[in-house]
Amino acid sequence: MNAAVLKKMAMRAKKAAVTLGMLDTEVKNKALRAMADAMLKHKAFILRENAKDVSAAEKRGISQALLGRLALDDKKIAGIASMLGAIADLKDPVGKSISEWSRPNGLVIRKVRVPIGVILIIYESRPNVTADCMALCLKSGNSVILKGGSEAFFSNKALFKILSQAAYTAGVPEGAFEFVSATDRSVVKTLLQMRDDIDLVIPRGGEGLIRQVAALSKIPVIKHYKGVCHVFVDKDANLSKAEKIVVNAKTQNPGVCNAMETLLVHEAIAEKFLPSVSERLKEKQVELRGDDKTRKWVSGVKKATQKDWYEEYLDLVLAVRVVKNFDEAVAHIRKYGSAHSDAIVTENAATAGAFTRQIDSACVFVNASTRFNDGGEFGMGAEMGISTDKLHARGPMGLEELTSYKYVVLGQGQVRG
Amino acid sequence: MNAAVLKKMAMRAKKAAVTLGMLDTEVKNKALRAMADAMLKHKAFILRENAKDVSAAEKRGISQALLGRLALDDKKIAGIASMLGAIADLKDPVGKSISEWSRPNGLVIRKVRVPIGVILIIYESRPNVTADCMALCLKSGNSVILKGGSEAFFSNKALFKILSQAAYTAGVPEGAFEFVSATDRSVVKTLLQMRDDIDLVIPRGGEGLIRQVAALSKIPVIKHYKGVCHVFVDKDANLSKAEKIVVNAKTQNPGVCNAMETLLVHEAIAEKFLPSVSERLKEKQVELRGDDKTRKWVSGVKKATQKDWYEEYLDLVLAVRVVKNFDEAVAHIRKYGSAHSDAIVTENAATAGAFTRQIDSACVFVNASTRFNDGGEFGMGAEMGISTDKLHARGPMGLEELTSYKYVVLGQGQVRG
Repeated sequence: MNAAVLKKMAMRAKKAAVTLGMLDTEVKNKALRAMADAMLKHKAFILRENAKDVSAAEKRGISQALLGRLALDDKKIAGIASMLGAIADLKDPVGKSISEWSRPNGLVIRKVRVPIGVILIIYESRPNVTADCMALCLKSGNSVILKGGSEAFFSNKALFKILSQAAYTAGVPEGAFEFVSATDRSVVKTLLQMRDDIDLVIPRGGEGLIRQVAALSKIPVIKHYKGVCHVFVDKDANLSKAEKIVVNAKTQNPGVCNAMETLLVHEAIAEKFLPSVSERLKEKQVELRGDDKTRKWVSGVKKATQKDWYEEYLDLVLAVRVVKNFDEAVAHIRKYGSAHSDAIVTENAATAGAFTRQIDSACVFVNASTRFNDGGEFGMGAEMGISTDKLHARGPMGLEELTSYKYVVLGQGQVRG
Repeated sequence: MNAAVLKKMAMRAKKAAVTLGMLDTEVKNKALRAMADAMLKHKAFILRENAKDVSAAEKRGISQALLGRLALDDKKIAGIASMLGAIADLKDPVGKSISEWSRPNGLVIRKVRVPIGVILIIYESRPNVTADCMALCLKSGNSVILKGGSEAFFSNKALFKILSQAAYTAGVPEGAFEFVSATDRSVVKTLLQMRDDIDLVIPRGGEGLIRQVAALSKIPVIKHYKGVCHVFVDKDANLSKAEKIVVNAKTQNPGVCNAMETLLVHEAIAEKFLPSVSERLKEKQVELRGDDKTRKWVSGVKKATQKDWYEEYLDLVLAVRVVKNFDEAVAHIRKYGSAHSDAIVTENAATAGAFTRQIDSACVFVNASTRFNDGGEFGMGAEMGISTDKLHARGPMGLEELTSYKYVVLGQGQVRG
């Protein structure tokens, strides 16, 4: 695909966005349900195409973890179909009034949600991202350009074909979904220059991909960087709550961005808390890397280096540090954290309040697992990802975060004096 | 100022932002009032420094309009002092709860406003922008780096010195305000690469400056581009309201971005409306440039070219076009407009509704002048400018638009299942 072909694609998406932005909620929901039906109806075709990707990946000898993300099966396809239905059931954000007020001169000002326009999603090997993004962008009235990873090429293309056909038949304007069928990297660079046609780029994947997109893009990017998430067990913690939260935050799903990577323990309770929690963690096969004070209370712990404090393991590994006091915990999180999800365990309301004020992360928890930083858990119904940026959207990005707004001002002939 | 000096400056601003983001409202307000007092106390010094810029500008022979923007006087200084007091009186957006809800598992989720961090403002010749930006950033808890135009160098430096000293004495952390004293353009390029230290760039000035900043920046930019604003007088318009609105939108302050640049008139009322409105406009010294149909009903109108439809005159010039129908008006605005401020004059509620749905501009007006797209007129109290972007902030940017948010989640030991 050369630049001219890509430009045409982006212009189709831009043109479709005008109609799509005003499309009736019912048409969008009908299309989403038709997409769900089509998933199930064409399951055999999708699995056949997915098998091509899986077999190529196996030949290249990729890891079991990556293979697990790539491979589709009956259960995953049913899951995608059910997600499509669930997005049809969510409220349409477009046209919703965010706020409304009137002015002394009689003008009524209404702040109304509108779609952003054209969104480019650049992602890696999980084919279900194709369906997620098509559904979320459709419901929020945005055209979407999909650029998936080459390792999932056949799967993505099959999903795109089935889902877009179903949506177009149901009345979605053609161009609402575009698929970049080239797999060479120069295509990404070309797309990232098209700031007149594409309004937003969302890279979904590893840190390398995200940094590369951010560095190249002339279009605004909302990043979903890594999560170096902390749990701080304060001196006033309820230690049984603390143990449950620490074990959950580390082990419930260690491969995701909101899993805990570093445990900070207040010195005053370290002797009591550390031996017991480390037993629970070791039962779950967690490898600990600790500072000297941690290693004093727990035997067989590897020494943590500076590098460990910055590390997003995404694995059953945990860095542990004993801190002198609250301030040292806050300073550690500010220095080494990624401002994603950080928690305190404490029964002291003043300490909890100080933590939520002083820690500037997308999501700050008191007495709860960091794993709750998630669109579904927040009640948003579905999410595009978890933004680590501070502009436009921060934390879980649901349908509302995929919209902009405009002001509608209603007058009776007012002029400015 | 070399790159190392600029980097140190940005790091000072970043460090100050942490404290500033948690500063008590009372300290910020006290500082703003001290800044207002200092303006008046040091008026003679400020005027003396401003006179250096004005005299240099006169020697270079700049236009009267530019000179008017550059020159300060007693009245302007009193205006700045009063603006500082007014911002002290505004509600502090930081820490404000945007929304709060609870989940079936008992978690309470609170979406809370926080500052963005470090904001870089790049602006041109109006010295009062220095004071505006310092006040708005302080109140919204953001550190600000100011890069003003070389033509206002002495004025900006004097204002910066007086205002920052007053604020620091009142308890604002040092580094909250930084001033780029170099005037060479390479400095801007260097600053625009510092995406680890600066969170947002707002260019304020002409289109050339804004385009240049957007092209060079590795930091998110919120743009305040030009306003090619329209008024569409529909066939169902109340023509006396229409005349008032058209004259106001064009002539009340023609040099600003929310002034009307193109008038669209429905064919069905053109014969009746155009001769009379053009008389009123001519009385106000407005030069008209019209299409053939306009020239049929109004004599002495220069022929408009394609270029006129795209033009932001910022002057007493108006492009006029007669359109066949509503759809042609909408198509014209979509094609030639800048999605800033567009108005319809109509008594037909269905037509008004269609216009507000189909026109995707930052501000869409029904029966009111485009000049109302303004933070003050919206009741925001003060504004950083009017965003023409669709991400983060659109339309007038007040204090709230200078903030981000974080989620604070309060639990009682919840873990994810």
